[in-house]
Amino acid sequence: MISVIVLGTGNVGTHLINAFLKAKNVKLLQVYSRKKTSLKFIEAKVSSTSKLEELKEADVYIVAISDDAISDFSIQLKIKNKLVVHTSGSVAMQALKTNAHKGVFYPLQTFSKKNHVDFRNVPICLETENENDLIVLEKVASAISKNVYFIDSNQRKYLHVAAVFTNNFVNHIYKIGFDICKKHDIPFETLHPLILETASKVVQNNPNNIQTGPAHRKDKKTIASHLALLSGDEKNIYNILTESIEKTYGEKL
Amino acid sequence: MISVIVLGTGNVGTHLINAFLKAKNVKLLQVYSRKKTSLKFIEAKVSSTSKLEELKEADVYIVAISDDAISDFSIQLKIKNKLVVHTSGSVAMQALKTNAHKGVFYPLQTFSKKNHVDFRNVPICLETENENDLIVLEKVASAISKNVYFIDSNQRKYLHVAAVFTNNFVNHIYKIGFDICKKHDIPFETLHPLILETASKVVQNNPNNIQTGPAHRKDKKTIASHLALLSGDEKNIYNILTESIEKTYGEKL
Repeated sequence: MISVIVLGTGNVGTHLINAFLKAKNVKLLQVYSRKKTSLKFIEAKVSSTSKLEELKEADVYIVAISDDAISDFSIQLKIKNKLVVHTSGSVAMQALKTNAHKGVFYPLQTFSKKNHVDFRNVPICLETENENDLIVLEKVASAISKNVYFIDSNQRKYLHVAAVFTNNFVNHIYKIGFDICKKHDIPFETLHPLILETASKVVQNNPNNIQTGPAHRKDKKTIASHLALLSGDEKNIYNILTESIEKTYGEKL
Repeated sequence: MISVIVLGTGNVGTHLINAFLKAKNVKLLQVYSRKKTSLKFIEAKVSSTSKLEELKEADVYIVAISDDAISDFSIQLKIKNKLVVHTSGSVAMQALKTNAHKGVFYPLQTFSKKNHVDFRNVPICLETENENDLIVLEKVASAISKNVYFIDSNQRKYLHVAAVFTNNFVNHIYKIGFDICKKHDIPFETLHPLILETASKVVQNNPNNIQTGPAHRKDKKTIASHLALLSGDEKNIYNILTESIEKTYGEKL
């Protein structure tokens, strides 16, 4: 059975640990955190350590720490002939400074410690230096998720940008809707079903085919009346997105 | 039992008709469409007509036609002492030109004829000129939905803007993510769970409390590397949303 050690007990690390504890075809051998107190939650379930020199020998070492720390941390790992992977969407595989084999094991989901995540549905994007390692890493990923993809470092850069749009930027747009409602004593709940339906539609359709609204139908009258209600950033963002939608669908007509 | 006539068989009209046919405490008395062919689907189930002079006498007339046509159409309705409502998010109640009582019955959801919508979860935003009519309209709305709100014309203007943000603009942001993926041979499916989780989070949280990403943590390095990958509208939109997020959360720190 493939053995795995998870290094890091932040959001991603914690969710990975819980997923591997339930996995059948992979053994979670050990958990590392530099802070001893961060290991309390796991002590009864699996071997753990806060000292790098106590790391056991495993097939795969999953470094689940913050992006900026990956390079410096990986230098300290005295591992050879094994596979060391990081979990970051925005860091290149070669940022790992180690004599071990290198790879990436990037779970593409927004994690917070308190929210339950069903890892079976989390896409895991894999990359390795050589094919044999990819076979091993695919087995590890498949043990916890049914959605495994091979994404190289160049693709992953773009995937990360796309994720910023569809997660961070979408949430900021939600926030604008929330603020408008709040300011005018409208319950934000009135928009909840629309938000869920919009998200649900895009996982079944090409977003180009389901665009609607005043900008899409070039309804200048409604656009002008909306702009009259807005100011500051909200108005700027309304303008730039409206222009972009008009341009996108104008060219196609 | 309150009797209702639906006028119009577009997306909203069709979904309303199907919802009322299943409702227990409201009787769908008749359906009107100016096109006889549009009534085929309903003929076996309920009385229908394409002639305004054949309209029966009902308690509530729901005008589910396009925004621009509401005023001119309502002039033709020879109805008195009954309630006439439109279903538009962006049209004022007073756009109804009728001697009957006026109101608004605005179901806030994105409808397409082929997609099934569970009307029980669709928020319905109500407005009337007087309180007695509101009691009637609330009964009608409650017969098909469990989410009924009282939203006046001024609030509805803002609610419609907020809906443009959270539906139309969010879909355009999805489209940008889709395009980036397509251009770099990345399956858009990798982003589906993130999209659904982001939407699901915002119906349980204030979006201000769950913002994440490079702009939120002021990660200039990642922002610069993302901007280097983008051009045109995508770059402009990345820039303006990043600046807006930085401003929003910068002021709070």
